[in-house]
Amino acid sequence: MLQPAESGLASPMLTTPCLVLDEERLRANLAGMRAHLDRLGVAFRPHLKTAKSIDVARLAMAAPSGSATVSTLREAEYFAEGGVRDMTYAVGIAPQKLDRVGAVRQRWGANLAVVLDSIEQADAVASWSQRAGDRLPALIEVDADGHRSGVKPGDTETLVAIGRALDAGAVLRGVLLHAGDSYGLSAPEALAEAAERERMAAVTAAETLRAAGLLCPVVSIGSTPTARYARDLTGVTEVRAGVFMFGDLFQAGVGSVAVDDIALSVLATVIGHRRDKGWIITDAGWMALSRDRGTARQAVDQGYGVVCDLTGRPYRDLIVADANQEHGILALRPGSGAELPDLPAGARVRILPNHACATGAQHDRYHVLDAAGRIGAVWPRINGW
Amino acid sequence: MLQPAESGLASPMLTTPCLVLDEERLRANLAGMRAHLDRLGVAFRPHLKTAKSIDVARLAMAAPSGSATVSTLREAEYFAEGGVRDMTYAVGIAPQKLDRVGAVRQRWGANLAVVLDSIEQADAVASWSQRAGDRLPALIEVDADGHRSGVKPGDTETLVAIGRALDAGAVLRGVLLHAGDSYGLSAPEALAEAAERERMAAVTAAETLRAAGLLCPVVSIGSTPTARYARDLTGVTEVRAGVFMFGDLFQAGVGSVAVDDIALSVLATVIGHRRDKGWIITDAGWMALSRDRGTARQAVDQGYGVVCDLTGRPYRDLIVADANQEHGILALRPGSGAELPDLPAGARVRILPNHACATGAQHDRYHVLDAAGRIGAVWPRINGW
Repeated sequence: MLQPAESGLASPMLTTPCLVLDEERLRANLAGMRAHLDRLGVAFRPHLKTAKSIDVARLAMAAPSGSATVSTLREAEYFAEGGVRDMTYAVGIAPQKLDRVGAVRQRWGANLAVVLDSIEQADAVASWSQRAGDRLPALIEVDADGHRSGVKPGDTETLVAIGRALDAGAVLRGVLLHAGDSYGLSAPEALAEAAERERMAAVTAAETLRAAGLLCPVVSIGSTPTARYARDLTGVTEVRAGVFMFGDLFQAGVGSVAVDDIALSVLATVIGHRRDKGWIITDAGWMALSRDRGTARQAVDQGYGVVCDLTGRPYRDLIVADANQEHGILALRPGSGAELPDLPAGARVRILPNHACATGAQHDRYHVLDAAGRIGAVWPRINGW
Repeated sequence: MLQPAESGLASPMLTTPCLVLDEERLRANLAGMRAHLDRLGVAFRPHLKTAKSIDVARLAMAAPSGSATVSTLREAEYFAEGGVRDMTYAVGIAPQKLDRVGAVRQRWGANLAVVLDSIEQADAVASWSQRAGDRLPALIEVDADGHRSGVKPGDTETLVAIGRALDAGAVLRGVLLHAGDSYGLSAPEALAEAAERERMAAVTAAETLRAAGLLCPVVSIGSTPTARYARDLTGVTEVRAGVFMFGDLFQAGVGSVAVDDIALSVLATVIGHRRDKGWIITDAGWMALSRDRGTARQAVDQGYGVVCDLTGRPYRDLIVADANQEHGILALRPGSGAELPDLPAGARVRILPNHACATGAQHDRYHVLDAAGRIGAVWPRINGW
């Protein structure tokens, strides 16, 4: 029975399932990224879409006022309320959302920038800027690897047309890329190459704009794998990354983090057994863990998560093999020679998630584990749009 | 352009992504289930884990005071606060949660029952009842088909031992089953057989308890597919089901609902295009739709959802082919001869979800669509534990 009463995680005052955030690991992950980016000589604009918590943001940002990256306008409002004054809303802007962007800029004096990849959007942003008397800064999304949005880095005509359309009323701040295809890699060499391709695409696009006489001060790239494996970021001015702060099993599969660095876990209570099947049932189903099964496509399928004792050490070969809405089914990996741990009804375990962004979003707070293994604080987090 | 300004769904006041709930379809789904269960002569104890909304609960329940089924104690507290007085918490009870169960019973005078499947849990419930001076009603979970928890219906020894352990201090209310394996079926005959197996397992277990001299007034079964396909429920006293109220693409794949009956959708705004790839990008990524990809294992894979116009009519062959956190990628099904609809940046669509329980949980409210196609109300919903 590895359930030290003094750890706090066994306390009946703690309602399960709930999120546990290991503050030491979080701080170490942040320090590691900061040191790496310092060596490469680029600024860090942490992506707050994973944590969605002002307490985490303050640990991640260089200063309480920013800079930061957000994925929703709800995040922009929440972090502006918390004192963040320099943010990029890194999802393509819809014209209907410009009034809300303007309200964040005006109410909190926040320098909130938008992202776009079409002339139509640039025209809408320029028109809005002229009507509102607020020259909105915008970054052109450039396609790093074909995985999602963005202008192709070699499409000079579109890049320059967007830049000129923006300059007619708004402000071209720079270019922004996200090497999402790196999520499918796992070899360090391939990841370093993906990072170099992202850098090259960014620099090519920025130079195209500059050659047309446009200002392009910001060259922004970012994904946890390419940030981690980049060897040279010449020409890049800032890196965005977020999920590395918490880490997760998917990023461990890619090689961006180590399993022992994962700072986020779900605390669960055993609620039953199917001894005939070798199952332990807990109260952390997919509602608590999320439906994310990202590791299913990786070399090691971790089910719905890796099961650890209360000190955070994984039980050998024990994973969440299946999940219903409020039931998690713990079982040994197929073919394992390990023994099922003795976990009676009421015993607790910690589960490392597939995907910190998805698992975090199922909850409204973090229970923050201090160096002594106690819950020293509760940090709220937001969700929604 | 099928975006009638008069529908309300194109209004810029509506922030996307958001949930839209078609009240007519919801009422029709409820009326259909009620009529079906009336014909079979069993009571309906609606499962509120999908909706998590008191407004939906009041439409679903026979009376404002219940009865109902819940999947978390947070739901029990919320619905008790809203006037529900007869609830079954249908997830195996952990001993640490008994004080919270007792608090709901005492504070609101709510008849909240628990579920268990082991002698250890029954002893804990009986001891708690004696200490608290509150004879807690408990149902024994019986395994319908091997998919999750529960005592095997033929395991007389365990069933009777649990029943006797409960009667030592608490109250044996009955047996409870959930035919989760029916989710993997799709042929009506196979579904009817699964329903009959669930009924037989329930009646067998109840009769085993009664033969031992124990009272077993409640025989509770439930899953949307077996509830829908049951032809005879002799010996069963109540049916629990929840997801049918909203319906979803997974249940449509099973055959429990029709696509045209799906009452829940996610309203999304177009934020970009990749015309070279045939993609339309929207602001409803997996954060808004959930990571649930239940239809991936069915005959028709619906991606992250089926894309409809604002009137709720599916565009031919248009699905959410992929999703990032805040990006949904709309594309035609592979091999489709259909044409991509003309949806400029700012246009809106409605997306039918894979799984209503999972998609609903990504949001905190329903925008309720009335018969005139307008948002007539906003119904809050809860999440968490």
